[in-house]
Amino acid sequence: MTGRPIRVAVDAMGADRGPDEIVAGAIAAASDEIELLIVGPRGLETHGLELVEASDVIAMEDKPTEAVRSKPNSSLVVACRLVGEGRADAVVSPGNTGAMLAASLFNIKRLRGVLRPAIAVVIPARDEPSVLIDAGANADARPEHLVQFAEMGLVLSEEVLGVATPQVQLLTIGEESEKGSELALEAHRMLRETCRSFNGNTEGRDLLGVGGRVVVADGFTGNVTLKVVEGTIKTILDALRDEISATARGKLGGLLIRPAARRLRTRLDPDTYGGAYLLGLRGLVVIAHGGSSGRAIANAVRLAARGVEHDVVGRLAERLGGEKTVLESATSTTPTPQTR
Amino acid sequence: MTGRPIRVAVDAMGADRGPDEIVAGAIAAASDEIELLIVGPRGLETHGLELVEASDVIAMEDKPTEAVRSKPNSSLVVACRLVGEGRADAVVSPGNTGAMLAASLFNIKRLRGVLRPAIAVVIPARDEPSVLIDAGANADARPEHLVQFAEMGLVLSEEVLGVATPQVQLLTIGEESEKGSELALEAHRMLRETCRSFNGNTEGRDLLGVGGRVVVADGFTGNVTLKVVEGTIKTILDALRDEISATARGKLGGLLIRPAARRLRTRLDPDTYGGAYLLGLRGLVVIAHGGSSGRAIANAVRLAARGVEHDVVGRLAERLGGEKTVLESATSTTPTPQTR
Repeated sequence: MTGRPIRVAVDAMGADRGPDEIVAGAIAAASDEIELLIVGPRGLETHGLELVEASDVIAMEDKPTEAVRSKPNSSLVVACRLVGEGRADAVVSPGNTGAMLAASLFNIKRLRGVLRPAIAVVIPARDEPSVLIDAGANADARPEHLVQFAEMGLVLSEEVLGVATPQVQLLTIGEESEKGSELALEAHRMLRETCRSFNGNTEGRDLLGVGGRVVVADGFTGNVTLKVVEGTIKTILDALRDEISATARGKLGGLLIRPAARRLRTRLDPDTYGGAYLLGLRGLVVIAHGGSSGRAIANAVRLAARGVEHDVVGRLAERLGGEKTVLESATSTTPTPQTR
Repeated sequence: MTGRPIRVAVDAMGADRGPDEIVAGAIAAASDEIELLIVGPRGLETHGLELVEASDVIAMEDKPTEAVRSKPNSSLVVACRLVGEGRADAVVSPGNTGAMLAASLFNIKRLRGVLRPAIAVVIPARDEPSVLIDAGANADARPEHLVQFAEMGLVLSEEVLGVATPQVQLLTIGEESEKGSELALEAHRMLRETCRSFNGNTEGRDLLGVGGRVVVADGFTGNVTLKVVEGTIKTILDALRDEISATARGKLGGLLIRPAARRLRTRLDPDTYGGAYLLGLRGLVVIAHGGSSGRAIANAVRLAARGVEHDVVGRLAERLGGEKTVLESATSTTPTPQTR
């Protein structure tokens, strides 16, 4: 790193565990290279970090677009505005995902050529990380959106994750090209024609097994997949622990395998990345889990800083703005945030 | 069981491991209550089970509808026809799923009032089993289809799995009613109005954790979910084994927890149920994994027999044929098999 520190705005409100946990995470991430702006109510204890005041809060259950319009002084909206106005390089929020999408579209704005911003999650596969995109920004999507998600995922994979030659795969219900919903079939056809890194379909069976990929899905499928993976990991490890504790022999074995189990849990822990990128905007946006721990927030801040450092936004602008292909010509849709 | 044995036709061809494995499974399931009809080529060694000759085979990569039309003497089609003609009570095939759907629609036919047959998979949740429906028969579905999938899943849950008061949940991207794709939002609205057992949305996080449910999805989402769950279980248990074997201490621990790990693997092993019901037809159809072991086939045959014993088809006919509600009036769709 050279030059001035990267400024990351952190929305301290609206998360499940309250602002103190968020502030603690921000403090842990603060360094010579990362400067924090905490966005929250007057009087919030920031332990010396700069406070940007925001009098209002958007709750998890608020309707996204409505809340963003009616609460311009909410911490979530103010934090996004800091990026829009160039006062911060990136924003991290553990708040309402739909509201983050709406506030980002209003205050940070889409990059030229981007049809729909998408949520990109890093999947801790065995050998190298993969990217799952879209993990939930767009509940309904069109084939040309998926093609663009692939491009955005490739930028993330190459620039930030350092994967040398990431492969794009379409998440669908069969490895054969003729299997899938109408959306998946058309997306497959378009990807085959336009995306050089496209390597066919995946069923999602090896999502955690085979890394170095950009796995493309509509936001509904991607979001369900992400939650199913997270839930299954938790259920399996918990169930194994219970089976092990059922006998004395098992308990002893459990003690012995504890370090191994812990290594696995750490690799798979969503807190290790702390958040997901919302890509396709003129600024760097990271959405953290609503239930984020301090550790998750610290990692989300680092993820945001890494995105700035590698100029993900600039790379996306080059890659998507430069291409006057199917993407810009194929659509007459007005890109609107998913407002529900 | 009283009366004559249940006759189950088993398609011995078209699976990955070859006919001997299928025949071995069928033999294991044969009993005083279950009589087997093996469908395969002349000369196939059936070790005394009745052979029904079929000269042709539908391969996994064949196009379903085309294959069913052009290969009327394939083992898969002949096996379905045995049920259609009343010569067997149920059919089990580990073959091409799309072809099974097409052959069932042509030879066994839909129950009156059924819009689309659906694949129902038993999920071995912790306390009691759940049902995931549709696990892949319909890549594209409409809201009214999902409402009917719920009804079919309820019949299976109550009649065969013995769940006292199963709860229906819609698999979507948020627990709040206003989250989801257009399909999910409309299905939610219709389920709330018409299904007494409806208990809101589920994100799929607790699919293996909370049992006694009927989890409803379109076939695309359901199929991706099923494969993601299966893949994640395998990856996690394999990764844990590798972590454990990395150290001497871990290896010893691994030996001690082996029985516990085996209990868990057994509960979660897809072979434990061996197959999935294809519901909504005038006969009992079980689709087994293409890679089925003999044990999986034996369990699939038992699953089929249990469905016959509990008269799932009769119960479905009562439940769906009796209702002249939204379901029959709302649609003008011609129900066609998923032909790709």
